Amino acid sequence: MESFLGGWKPLIEQRVKSDIEIAQEATLKPIQEIADQLGLTEDDWEPYGRYKAKVSAHTLKRLQNNPDGKVVLVTSINPTPAGEGKSTVTVGLGQALNRIGKKTVIALREPSLGPSMGMKGGAAGGGYSQVVPMEDINLHFTGDIHAITTANNALSAMIDNHIHQGNALDIDQRRIVWKRVLDMNDRALRNIVVGLGGPANGVPREDSFDITVASEIMAILCLSTDIDDLKSRLSKMVIAYNHSKEPITVSDLGVQGALALLLKDAIHPNLVQTLENTPAFVHGGPFANIAHGCNSVIATKMASKLGDYVVTEAGFGADLGAEKFLDIKTRAGGIDPSAVVIVVTVRALKMHGGLAKDELKNEDLEALKRGMVNVEKHIETIKTFGLPYVVAINHFVHDTDAEVQYVQDWCNKNDHPVAVAKVWADGGAGGEALAKEVVEAIENGKKDFKHIYDLDTTIEEKIQTIVKKVYGGSGVEFSSKALKQLREFKEQGWGNLPVCMAKTQYSLSDDPKKTGRPSDFTIHVRELKASIGAGFIVAITGTVMTMPGLPKKPAALNMDVDNDGLVSGLF
Amino acid sequence: MESFLGGWKPLIEQRVKSDIEIAQEATLKPIQEIADQLGLTEDDWEPYGRYKAKVSAHTLKRLQNNPDGKVVLVTSINPTPAGEGKSTVTVGLGQALNRIGKKTVIALREPSLGPSMGMKGGAAGGGYSQVVPMEDINLHFTGDIHAITTANNALSAMIDNHIHQGNALDIDQRRIVWKRVLDMNDRALRNIVVGLGGPANGVPREDSFDITVASEIMAILCLSTDIDDLKSRLSKMVIAYNHSKEPITVSDLGVQGALALLLKDAIHPNLVQTLENTPAFVHGGPFANIAHGCNSVIATKMASKLGDYVVTEAGFGADLGAEKFLDIKTRAGGIDPSAVVIVVTVRALKMHGGLAKDELKNEDLEALKRGMVNVEKHIETIKTFGLPYVVAINHFVHDTDAEVQYVQDWCNKNDHPVAVAKVWADGGAGGEALAKEVVEAIENGKKDFKHIYDLDTTIEEKIQTIVKKVYGGSGVEFSSKALKQLREFKEQGWGNLPVCMAKTQYSLSDDPKKTGRPSDFTIHVRELKASIGAGFIVAITGTVMTMPGLPKKPAALNMDVDNDGLVSGLF
Repeated sequence: MESFLGGWKPLIEQRVKSDIEIAQEATLKPIQEIADQLGLTEDDWEPYGRYKAKVSAHTLKRLQNNPDGKVVLVTSINPTPAGEGKSTVTVGLGQALNRIGKKTVIALREPSLGPSMGMKGGAAGGGYSQVVPMEDINLHFTGDIHAITTANNALSAMIDNHIHQGNALDIDQRRIVWKRVLDMNDRALRNIVVGLGGPANGVPREDSFDITVASEIMAILCLSTDIDDLKSRLSKMVIAYNHSKEPITVSDLGVQGALALLLKDAIHPNLVQTLENTPAFVHGGPFANIAHGCNSVIATKMASKLGDYVVTEAGFGADLGAEKFLDIKTRAGGIDPSAVVIVVTVRALKMHGGLAKDELKNEDLEALKRGMVNVEKHIETIKTFGLPYVVAINHFVHDTDAEVQYVQDWCNKNDHPVAVAKVWADGGAGGEALAKEVVEAIENGKKDFKHIYDLDTTIEEKIQTIVKKVYGGSGVEFSSKALKQLREFKEQGWGNLPVCMAKTQYSLSDDPKKTGRPSDFTIHVRELKASIGAGFIVAITGTVMTMPGLPKKPAALNMDVDNDGLVSGLF
Repeated sequence: MESFLGGWKPLIEQRVKSDIEIAQEATLKPIQEIADQLGLTEDDWEPYGRYKAKVSAHTLKRLQNNPDGKVVLVTSINPTPAGEGKSTVTVGLGQALNRIGKKTVIALREPSLGPSMGMKGGAAGGGYSQVVPMEDINLHFTGDIHAITTANNALSAMIDNHIHQGNALDIDQRRIVWKRVLDMNDRALRNIVVGLGGPANGVPREDSFDITVASEIMAILCLSTDIDDLKSRLSKMVIAYNHSKEPITVSDLGVQGALALLLKDAIHPNLVQTLENTPAFVHGGPFANIAHGCNSVIATKMASKLGDYVVTEAGFGADLGAEKFLDIKTRAGGIDPSAVVIVVTVRALKMHGGLAKDELKNEDLEALKRGMVNVEKHIETIKTFGLPYVVAINHFVHDTDAEVQYVQDWCNKNDHPVAVAKVWADGGAGGEALAKEVVEAIENGKKDFKHIYDLDTTIEEKIQTIVKKVYGGSGVEFSSKALKQLREFKEQGWGNLPVCMAKTQYSLSDDPKKTGRPSDFTIHVRELKASIGAGFIVAITGTVMTMPGLPKKPAALNMDVDNDGLVSGLF
């Protein structure tokens, strides 16, 4: 049966021509078959087109006595412009585990549409390790992100309307911390003034739009365990302060029910498949800087109830994504991870060894050697969390045998489990070696999982712990503003929340230029942000961008769809 | 099978308790059955949940040799706060036609989500004449409106980015006519300043958000006949003027392909059903003031290829909705209407006869008598268009027999076909008398359909014609700005486009207080707007609101969803 919505087939055929014959032989199964394969009944799920479905969050109740599958987290070294391919390895590993007889379900993040208008490139794997229908997943998909945009902006409208209608809560319009959002790269909306035009048109004030995935509502959707938890978290969101500097929350406005209603479909995980028909949940995609950057707790838990193995990912490198997964998401969802895969690429390691992007084509074992310190640090971190791990060398076509061998030898010499993953080129078949190492690590590796900090330490202590144990830094410097906030947040009773670090992903330090493994550095905490609904305190270091801009030649200029619905220029 | 998405069943059960036992016995059919019933194959449609589907626009090609069904337009007298129930009559008439053996398909507008956060009340019929799942239709539905929001704002981001990146097109940032949109009632966004914060954050300028249904893209989606037509219309949209005051279009920016891509799913009509399982397309809902206020051409044409009868509606009263349907939509879509139903209510007629809203409960035959002039004028208008018509008395429970009898007698005396429709209370059964009158009007009425103006007359002449023939006014006064625009638009070669009047819906004149049938009035055209992609010139009279606000106690305060997904407070 052809799909006129999404039209994945034409797209894939077209990629064949433009992108080394990817997925040429792939035949998607109707989503009904994928659901059947997972043992889902027709009451558990609803179709969105022929190749997508939403699986009811309530299904978790029915499955509660199923044993939990092994959760494998895919993370990476500090990313570089050379690319690491974490999503591709996640998909490839999931496919490979199935090939070696382990019933595996993948749990990925849902990509944001906005950035795809700017830069070419999807966010659902690559090559023969993709989730499909890829162009749907990268565009409107099942509407989750649009629902979050709507809920976020309904709240904004309620706040401004409350002030306009008399401001019974005494909201200080200079201290509204709730921002509007759009799923769009639009720098002109970073700093705006709203409410102009006289008394009939609201109260003038400074405001700002973030990209939707930066909304606290996205973080909440991804950490909630059910609708009640979602609503409870929404009600706690701090939207502003009154003139006595007391926090005003959503429950003060009384609109948590309306916001939850707007999210009543978005909370259900989306089920799709990979090019090799491995079931994949693609659900939720909060920013990895001011939020925790992992897919939803509900999707991960559902995957673990439906599969013997779950392969999931977290944003950025292990210093950010894995730390937040292990300290925030596992706590919120009661998730017990079994192993971690640390993705490296020869190209990225060479950048950590000091090469520039245009020098990566040539074999350079010395640069590679220098760059190994980056993965070394992340391995230490994962060991500190007490989890078994495997280093996955994500193979790129131009990597030389000597380079790949060097990384393998280094791992072997230091007793680090390692495997080469040719999943982009060969799909699941190219990931079987990795899959076997992962199974071996889970079955025979040492596991003693512990969080890196206790919740009952202070915010300051938690940050110090992360900086020293995860980043390898020497200490933390708080700005005077941050120090003031530390006191205020403690007074508010928020001191026992976990910390969500917002730091550059390019370095273990807060200076993106410091690649490799910097030492003797200090992390500068500029400001804190109270995401009380999400349930964490964001510590902002350096500049954090929450609304991207478009480049000089946006990718949109090349996009098209013909009269038969065939898409071009999207990837 | 239960539906966890949308949860229509619990909602209906709840309405039973709160809203005189509506739809208690209703049993929805899986959308598969509705599609089968229409003769659609599985290649023609894709499911969105168990009770919604998108039918491919391409299906029109397959059906092109099917005979066209009879298109019945439902319009009304000038609306009043007393309510007319046009959508309810549309649904009820469709159900009734099926009951008397005419294979009928309904084609309705898609409601906007934003207003439901403010005022209680859905927009998909009422009582026993509803389309379902009603709460889905009134919230995110299949995402069409979100797709339009995205396309509209992608264009805005491209415009500001173009200026930021060097402004090769020499766009005059004071003359950008393209606005951003959100599907939200948010007065604070009516007048804003964007691009603040220094050189890295764009170029400061005044801007404004409209509600999404006011976007020209919504009008275009509803007038397009296929994706190529959509793209061609998008490319013609005027977004700004350069410093030489020449129009800049989407094709100058080169993003029509990207915008069409973002709308590739939204262009396919949505199929749902009524409480009596009558198939209904619910697709597109452009503002009835600055746009034409009708559902999509593709949906109406598809309905006419699948049914022997199509019942569809147009926004506001016959002076606006029907005129635009007959002069704009029929031209764009090649639609040949067969008859018009003019909905009246006793309550609204009494308001046209001078009663205030709190005086409507009591029988008042004198007021009713005075109010009949309003329907009289609309009947004359429909006769001018050369179409058979039926007056439908939409029966409210408190209407007295004498009042209803009076309206019937008046119609009979003046040879106007008339029927009482008890469709809210009795569903299709309550509409059978109306259905028979409609069939009679089509089979034996006189039809000589003609547009009210010729396209090759000037914009000014077209407006004059509408004011005199449709509104019953004496003439038109153009502001100096409008006069200047008349000259400029003529120079641009836009003079042969149809005119889309933006006027208050409450009066035949441009003064909302003049109810009944005012005479000797002048229409004041304040400003023109060039909607070149939609293919019409908007003539703005009085104040036109394109971004509503929220009331003091928004409906959102009462909304909720429980942990099982049961919705409350939405309607």
